[in-house]
Order: sequence, then structure tokens, then C-alpha cells
Amino acid sequence: MPYINIKITRDGATAEQKAALIKGTTQLLVEVLGKNPATTIVVIDEVETDNWGIGGESVTKRRRRGQ
Amino acid sequence: MPYINIKITRDGATAEQKAALIKGTTQLLVEVLGKNPATTIVVIDEVETDNWGIGGESVTKRRRRGQ
Amino acid sequence: MPYINIKITRDGATAEQKAALIKGTTQLLVEVLGKNPATTIVVIDEVETDNWGIGGESVTKRRRRGQ
Amino acid sequence: MPYINIKITRDGATAEQKAALIKGTTQLLVEVLGKNPATTIVVIDEVETDNWGIGGESVTKRRRRGQ
Amino acid sequence: MPYINIKITRDGATAEQKAALIKGTTQLLVEVLGKNPATTIVVIDEVETDNWGIGGESVTKRRRRGQ
Amino acid sequence: MPYINIKITRDGATAEQKAALIKGTTQLLVEVLGKNPATTIVVIDEVETDNWGIGGESVTKRRRRGQ
Repeated sequence: MPYINIKITRDGATAEQKAALIKGTTQLLVEVLGKNPATTIVVIDEVETDNWGIGGESVTKRRRRGQ
Repeated sequence: MPYINIKITRDGATAEQKAALIKGTTQLLVEVLGKNPATTIVVIDEVETDNWGIGGESVTKRRRRGQ
Repeated sequence: MPYINIKITRDGATAEQKAALIKGTTQLLVEVLGKNPATTIVVIDEVETDNWGIGGESVTKRRRRGQ
Repeated sequence: MPYINIKITRDGATAEQKAALIKGTTQLLVEVLGKNPATTIVVIDEVETDNWGIGGESVTKRRRRGQ
Repeated sequence: MPYINIKITRDGATAEQKAALIKGTTQLLVEVLGKNPATTIVVIDEVETDNWGIGGESVTKRRRRGQ
Repeated sequence: MPYINIKITRDGATAEQKAALIKGTTQLLVEVLGKNPATTIVVIDEVETDNWGIGGESVTKRRRRGQ
């Protein structure tokens, strides 16, 4: 029954990579807590770099500065 | 004052269907808990099927397999 | 497969009232979008009034002022 | 270490305005609680007006009515 | 920079189990997408069974019925 | 109409500090985007240090190590 939400910047993650995140987090909940995978939901949000901030700056700006 | 977030897969829900979700959940909060609809917020997120997992698999893959 | 999150202030909602929110929102997703109730998840968060703000003020302060 | 999520309707907020939200909320967490900005994350979600409800109606409908 | 939120029912998960979820999801983001673990945040929410619904019913009720 | 969610570790933030976060973020949305404060909602979640991970470790463990 768990619900897992993964937020990452939109940087071209492929369907295969997202499938790996879904599979991996679901297995982790099964192994660590014995949860039922059939009702484990994973939602991945891909966020534009203008809309993601860290250190008080957008990721767009940080990358422009080479960070 | 409640805040309601509804996450569904992006499958062509129409503006009318989304309006029905907004109206229905808001009424429910009014009826069950006497909440003020004027400050009740509903946000609907439509998520790509590659980004939604259940049973350890993406919805895209499950549908391809006919589930 | 939908996921619904309802946030309300912690004001003594009973188990019966919360069950009514769970049942009502799940039914709404079934009726409006034909979703499968078996994998529809509803999570209710009850938030302390010091931790909920509206109009730039906490709900605790607003209530003290009679709003 | 804080995580801040800001949800607004998609109404043409510019990169500069979003940068101001990121900078301002991060500074607030530093000033009020002494948090470390280097690990403070801000995520801004811009939501279509059909998908945002208030008062039991979508923002699209309210605006059509002149509200 | 990813942000991961894991919601589970409050059922006595130990600090060790929660540490395993934190470690496992962080490693997954590193392995699958090359993300920096130093700024990867994981937040675990443990939700009362009265506040978690599936199949239109609270987990409390389902368990009482032996499901 | 914005919705702002602030997640911090549970470390004894006072009602006054939380009121300052509510006031400050609401004002920021008014100043930067001209949003209406009357329908701006702020929700603060205080999370146990066992349930907050960064760098692949819980905050509890990091603090025990002096970080």
C-alpha cells in the first residue's frame, strides 16, 4: 500500500531509467517492510530546471555558472 | 480551508470531468466536516504513464501487456 | 490507480468522518473517471492549527481573533 | 535541509519571478530557523487552470465568469 | 538534488528499517540517474491506519475484517 | 490561491517562528506574483529526524556523528 513520490529535474530520463526507479523503490519496500507490491504506487515528477531551486538559486542559473 | 490533491494518469480526462472532481471533493468536505468551500483548494495532477508505477512496473508496460 | 491526498486542520475529525472522506473520494473517481477502487489510495493528513496558514496568519491566531 | 513546494496556477510566471520565489523562500528559512541554504530545496509546480479548483469550481470557469 | 517522499501506514517501522529505506532510495537515484547523494532528500511519512484508505475503506476497517 | 508546503525536521520550531514562515511566504507570493493572500494556504510539516534522510543517512545518524 505504500505511496512513493520521486521528484527529479527534467533532464531526459528515459522510460527505461524511470522503470528502474519504479522497480527498485517497489522492491525496497517489499524487502525492508514486507509491503505488498501489487498496491504500491510510485509517481515520478520531472521538474523544469527553472522551477527547481537549491542554495537559493534555480538549477538553470547554477548550471549556467558551471555548477 | 482544506487542500485536496488528486493524482491520476494522463489519459484524456476532459475539463468537464476535472470540474466534476473539483465540485465533488469540495462538496464532500462541506458535507462531512462542514468545511468552507470558498477556501477549499483542489489540485489535479495528470501523470504520464511512464512516470506512474504500480506492482513494480510502469503503467505503460502494464498496458502493453494487456493489463 | 489514483492517489488522493486530503489535508485538513487537526480538529477532532472522527474515524467515521475520515471513513466517509475515503469512501466518498474513491467513489467519485470511480463514477467520474471509471477508476479501479481496489488500487485507489486516499491519505488524510491532519495538520496542527499552528502549522496551517491562510491570509498570512496561522489558523490558531485567526481563531483567537474570532475568525 | 528544508523542502519547500510552491503550487501556483500556470499563468506565465517568468524565470525571474520563479528565481525570486526560490531566493525569497530560501532566505526566509535561513533567517527564521537558521537552516542551511546549501541543502534547501524549492520546487515550483505550475498547474493548468482546468486542474485547479477553489470554491468548488475550476479557475478556468471562475475567470470566464469574471472572478 | 532529488526529493523522495515515502508514505507508509504507521505500523512500528524501526529506525533501522527507515534508515534502510533512506539508504536504498538514495543509492537507487545515484545508480540509475547519477544523482548526487549529498543533496538527495528522503522524507518518510507514517500515516495512521484510520487516515489511509484503499478500496474505498480505511486500513483500520480492512484489518478488522481480516484483510 | 497558491499552496505552499514547507517541510522541516521537528526541532522545536516555536509558534512564533512558524507564524513568521506563514507570513513571509504569503507576502512573497503577493509581492512577486500579485497573488491574493486571502486564499493563499501554507502548510508546515515537521518531520522526525529518523524519517528525514540526506546523503543516504537519517538526520538522527548524521547528528550522532556530529554533522
